[in-house]
Amino acid sequence: MRSAYAIGLDVGGTRIAAGLMERKGRIVHESKVSTPKEAGPFAIVDAMIAAIGDVMAGVQPSEVAGVGIGLPAQIDFAHQSVEYCTNLPIAGLDVRGLIMSRVKFPVTMDNDGHTAAFGESCFGAAKSLRDFVMITLGTGVGGGLFLEGRINRGSRGFGGEVGHVVLEVSGPPCPCGGRGHLESYAGRPAIIREAREAAGTYRGSSLARRAGGDIEAITAEMVVEAANAGDKAGVEIMGRVGDMLGEALVGLVNVLNPQAIVVGGGIGESCPLVIERAAARIQDEALAGRRDVRVVPALLGNDAGVAGAAALAFEDHDSREGLH
Amino acid sequence: MRSAYAIGLDVGGTRIAAGLMERKGRIVHESKVSTPKEAGPFAIVDAMIAAIGDVMAGVQPSEVAGVGIGLPAQIDFAHQSVEYCTNLPIAGLDVRGLIMSRVKFPVTMDNDGHTAAFGESCFGAAKSLRDFVMITLGTGVGGGLFLEGRINRGSRGFGGEVGHVVLEVSGPPCPCGGRGHLESYAGRPAIIREAREAAGTYRGSSLARRAGGDIEAITAEMVVEAANAGDKAGVEIMGRVGDMLGEALVGLVNVLNPQAIVVGGGIGESCPLVIERAAARIQDEALAGRRDVRVVPALLGNDAGVAGAAALAFEDHDSREGLH
Repeated sequence: MRSAYAIGLDVGGTRIAAGLMERKGRIVHESKVSTPKEAGPFAIVDAMIAAIGDVMAGVQPSEVAGVGIGLPAQIDFAHQSVEYCTNLPIAGLDVRGLIMSRVKFPVTMDNDGHTAAFGESCFGAAKSLRDFVMITLGTGVGGGLFLEGRINRGSRGFGGEVGHVVLEVSGPPCPCGGRGHLESYAGRPAIIREAREAAGTYRGSSLARRAGGDIEAITAEMVVEAANAGDKAGVEIMGRVGDMLGEALVGLVNVLNPQAIVVGGGIGESCPLVIERAAARIQDEALAGRRDVRVVPALLGNDAGVAGAAALAFEDHDSREGLH
Repeated sequence: MRSAYAIGLDVGGTRIAAGLMERKGRIVHESKVSTPKEAGPFAIVDAMIAAIGDVMAGVQPSEVAGVGIGLPAQIDFAHQSVEYCTNLPIAGLDVRGLIMSRVKFPVTMDNDGHTAAFGESCFGAAKSLRDFVMITLGTGVGGGLFLEGRINRGSRGFGGEVGHVVLEVSGPPCPCGGRGHLESYAGRPAIIREAREAAGTYRGSSLARRAGGDIEAITAEMVVEAANAGDKAGVEIMGRVGDMLGEALVGLVNVLNPQAIVVGGGIGESCPLVIERAAARIQDEALAGRRDVRVVPALLGNDAGVAGAAALAFEDHDSREGLH
């Protein structure tokens, strides 16, 4: 039977978003709660179970295909185990088993870069594409590969970490422990660091003003707003983010020859300059025959994670039922 | 009917190798001719046709599944057209049509990095692997992706160009026109350039001696031999090649999460130090959960191209006949 609904959970370091979604991608109920990070692993799982209950309101369990969960973690996809997780204390915990013992639905977990890519593929900027790379610019830089019509997770499920390609062998330290990775130039901490420096040097920059005169209070969002308003320091900082993103994409385009690059995440979706500059680098530097690759913003915004996770639950359900 | 033989052609800038191969990978007839590069595109195609005739000797056409051809070119795989070719004047020429009009076999063309990867997958270092990256170190640095049990060519067939990932944004010029790509550190010209410099500075290095005292005559193979013999300059140069290869692989391992990296090509297969150093970089710098990726030398050597191309012909034949 083709169930009418699936539930998607997007679990982040600061909040858990849940949604009840129809097959065509319309989210009919939503719920957002803070992630009880300090209360420990079981409290986090309880919050996830509560969020599932919240969005179920009024719908029969038999109408729900299952639950998909996107986590900021390295998931061994075949074994559905959480192997590594930097921001939440859930590595090694049988998250799926704990949830399934309480909600009686099938549960499928995946890395949140993969669910975002799957969401854009089903309902967003990559609809009907067969090969694309998703890249999410936020505090971290993540993403996912969609190749030959499906999410490519690599051998264990750890693939798609496009923020961790080397752009300068002796570049700045990356939060992952490496050096000169894309994330060390394009993540929020890098943007903020650059902005604090610039606010002290650039006369007439709006950056300090936007932060109420307190340079330490500058956020990456303020830098994006400044860039979008044409502020010179903002344009320089975000232009550089776009340039470095472009350098990483040159390599990915040469290696993967995708049809498109979808740029998402809070920073990626809000700053057209980043996309412009990245696309220009590809134009200039990618190998012949690949320069027409489209670089486009993600379309689903904050809903990408929930929609992609719910779509994963539909996919899993349908393949179990032989509906594919 | 499952034909007993397929013909593989490995077309390079300097020679065309052909082989008649049995299903299990044994090459029963071989032929090698110089590529008549100066005589123009049609002469090159004629030489390919002649090579097919050479290796057919004594075998009935009905026993041959088809011809596979690996070319140092960007092949639009679905359209079987040669879109770009740096070393041979055949871009835009209907190579496949010209050959099929004369030999009456089905012909399948592919990029030679892809055929090398396919050969290693069928008969070599990557037998039974589901996900690996092939990288060939020679004059150029090429390769191919094998993902989820098949060659991944990207949207048009241009994927797998692992030599063209950016390692230093302002690095040395790459033959492709970019800057700081892996190839600009690890291709033969880069090795030779380093060696000429080192031969002038390092006292007691064997490099100049190996070239008969003529620094201009140093080849990349001499540098590899020097490194393998423990010569300090040789070890430094080839160690650096391994380090830069490793930096590129850190990115590829993070993005693709493969089971293994297969290092082939004349330089890659002959210098264990390169593989050692590249593996060490991955150990140190790849994200958690991926560091156990195996980095292994290719096993098929000069036969990889022919074997992979012939295997492609078998695959193509069998899928047409519904034998897959």
